[in-house]
Amino acid sequence: MPGRALVSAWMNEARNETARVEAFSDGVFAVAITLLVLNLHVTAAPGQLAAALGREWPYYATYVVSFLTIGIIWMNHHAQFERIVRADRTLMVLNLLLLMFVTLIPFSTGLLAKYLDTASDQQAAAATYAASLLAMALSFFATYLWGTRAKLFSEQVLARHARYLIARNSAGLAVYVLAIAMAFVNATVSLALCGLTAVFYLSPGRRLD
Amino acid sequence: MPGRALVSAWMNEARNETARVEAFSDGVFAVAITLLVLNLHVTAAPGQLAAALGREWPYYATYVVSFLTIGIIWMNHHAQFERIVRADRTLMVLNLLLLMFVTLIPFSTGLLAKYLDTASDQQAAAATYAASLLAMALSFFATYLWGTRAKLFSEQVLARHARYLIARNSAGLAVYVLAIAMAFVNATVSLALCGLTAVFYLSPGRRLD
Amino acid sequence: MPGRALVSAWMNEARNETARVEAFSDGVFAVAITLLVLNLHVTAAPGQLAAALGREWPYYATYVVSFLTIGIIWMNHHAQFERIVRADRTLMVLNLLLLMFVTLIPFSTGLLAKYLDTASDQQAAAATYAASLLAMALSFFATYLWGTRAKLFSEQVLARHARYLIARNSAGLAVYVLAIAMAFVNATVSLALCGLTAVFYLSPGRRLD
Amino acid sequence: MPGRALVSAWMNEARNETARVEAFSDGVFAVAITLLVLNLHVTAAPGQLAAALGREWPYYATYVVSFLTIGIIWMNHHAQFERIVRADRTLMVLNLLLLMFVTLIPFSTGLLAKYLDTASDQQAAAATYAASLLAMALSFFATYLWGTRAKLFSEQVLARHARYLIARNSAGLAVYVLAIAMAFVNATVSLALCGLTAVFYLSPGRRLD
Repeated sequence: MPGRALVSAWMNEARNETARVEAFSDGVFAVAITLLVLNLHVTAAPGQLAAALGREWPYYATYVVSFLTIGIIWMNHHAQFERIVRADRTLMVLNLLLLMFVTLIPFSTGLLAKYLDTASDQQAAAATYAASLLAMALSFFATYLWGTRAKLFSEQVLARHARYLIARNSAGLAVYVLAIAMAFVNATVSLALCGLTAVFYLSPGRRLD
Repeated sequence: MPGRALVSAWMNEARNETARVEAFSDGVFAVAITLLVLNLHVTAAPGQLAAALGREWPYYATYVVSFLTIGIIWMNHHAQFERIVRADRTLMVLNLLLLMFVTLIPFSTGLLAKYLDTASDQQAAAATYAASLLAMALSFFATYLWGTRAKLFSEQVLARHARYLIARNSAGLAVYVLAIAMAFVNATVSLALCGLTAVFYLSPGRRLD
Repeated sequence: MPGRALVSAWMNEARNETARVEAFSDGVFAVAITLLVLNLHVTAAPGQLAAALGREWPYYATYVVSFLTIGIIWMNHHAQFERIVRADRTLMVLNLLLLMFVTLIPFSTGLLAKYLDTASDQQAAAATYAASLLAMALSFFATYLWGTRAKLFSEQVLARHARYLIARNSAGLAVYVLAIAMAFVNATVSLALCGLTAVFYLSPGRRLD
Repeated sequence: MPGRALVSAWMNEARNETARVEAFSDGVFAVAITLLVLNLHVTAAPGQLAAALGREWPYYATYVVSFLTIGIIWMNHHAQFERIVRADRTLMVLNLLLLMFVTLIPFSTGLLAKYLDTASDQQAAAATYAASLLAMALSFFATYLWGTRAKLFSEQVLARHARYLIARNSAGLAVYVLAIAMAFVNATVSLALCGLTAVFYLSPGRRLD
């Protein structure tokens, strides 16, 4: 029969290993995704509100793409940390880097929303936006690679699964690089590429079992 | 006697199935409901603060209705996820959609507060507001329907309870549709309908046992 | 030997009864207390920053009083929910009301900070501020009274402790009423009364055992 | 065989001792670190966005330094509370003080970002910034000292480890004091000192075992 102290110790250990990293990360994800709404605002001349709301499509489009992107990276973060049994200092630093780029997204989203409909500055805005998503995806990939190398994952991932996951992650990185290049041709297409990446990752991918 | 590893495994499994979805959702609900306060602000000519505070009733009314609405949807979310034993990818995507519409509410609330007292634009503002609540309620209903269809709930819901829950949810949807229509007649009545819906759902409904 | 399903069930039950109410409330408390910082901002003519920072004392004073007040109400909320073994619908609605008033505090804090140093409007601002703290304290008291009446607390509170807790709570309410009245005489004294209330509640009070 | 009530009681006790303090603190850390992004904003004349983004380096530099600083203090907080087995009232008040200074950082960060590139006010801004980090570090140190004195830590810290931890903490305090002094000579060097402190604490330090 396990004594009270022992049960407490086991519980604390299981809870502490990764739970507070997840809790803090969840908090940052939740705040960052919700701060996206602060980019939305409308000013209209009297009687022009309906028309003004209609003209705000760059704000809605960027809101949806960024919301889905942060939501998906959270889901992937969630799935990844389920398999992490131990969080070392390097993982925590890489995770902090990831959160730093996630937190930047409300800024780059507001930037693109503001300039998407301008002829002169949509290139710089769209390239900055896609670059912020790329930085976020790269730092997520780094946590995965470090977790693999430092053997932080539980033993459920076979070599062939690892190859699949690396291919799946790399595909996203490649599309973000393409979106940066495309920004200088057509900012809306660049945003659409980012949106398609989000939709692609909404699907669960191959089942690992 | 269960060994340490086994207890840990059970705990992790029970925790992981739905706990992080709830934690992330709780975070988004908590941030969104608190961001409502950022809509409140007063500017007054010297000596006119008390009068200016009194004129801000559209801000207070919309604050209260939106706070109660998000609070209640959180309670219902809470009650629903208590009965969910397994979170599949589709549920997580639908939940993300729900959170996207919840997060929009501080925006639509600020919009209605700003234009409720104007003759020219209160219709567009009130319709947008009620539509944002309808979108939120629809996506919540979608998580319920999917949970039922994919058998994600624990076995405690009988068929007659399901019928009752569907009727109760549909009532709310119908009132929001009515509130959108009413927005073009009288924006304050439209807001009042949304407020009454919140008060209606504050009551716990029939006990399911 | 308890089976896996049984252990899971016990855990879920213990976790679900009050844990998500606490998690959501913690989130709202944490966001509301952190949003206080958004009231702080300085604009200064070139070379005047140091002087401008010095003139901002109403912002610092109100920041500290509100931060401590929300922090303490969180601590008391924490202590209270530790003793709650069951959360019924009425408690959740009262808790939602409490959170609604807590969330208002960043607004009333910003209001007082802005007008504390003006001759014409400090009365209205200080009265609004103290009234927002009173509303928050009253709704907290309501959760306590309901919890007692509906027997939601664990059995550790004796009648004499209940009398002590009611007296301690009432003292705070009385001081907030006094602070509202004092607002019309001297807004800074009114704020000081609110600050003293916070410091008073920082002390743990009599030990209940 | 432990009965259901007993298991619940153990679990609640283990959870309640420090878990909600950690959950609330995590929330404040997560919101404060994410609010940093609200300091970032760009306004540019048509066709000047790329150039304007380039000129915003004080905003990026302060964002990175503050993000890493809050992230690291969170990690240290996390590591410290893992070893705390009991949270008394004094610890909670000291922790509240720490959170109050953490929450100030988005304000002092925005201040430094705004004035770092000005000749006239960079001294006041950089000194305020470094002072806010010093206040935060001092209050963190206070929670450590109190935890040691009141024997709130689990028994894993030997005297020689305590000496090491005190030395490590004091080093950070000394650099922040130096950064305040340096602010009056060169604000950028002062910021760089704060950044180096963050990088220094990113490394895990000597292993305590």
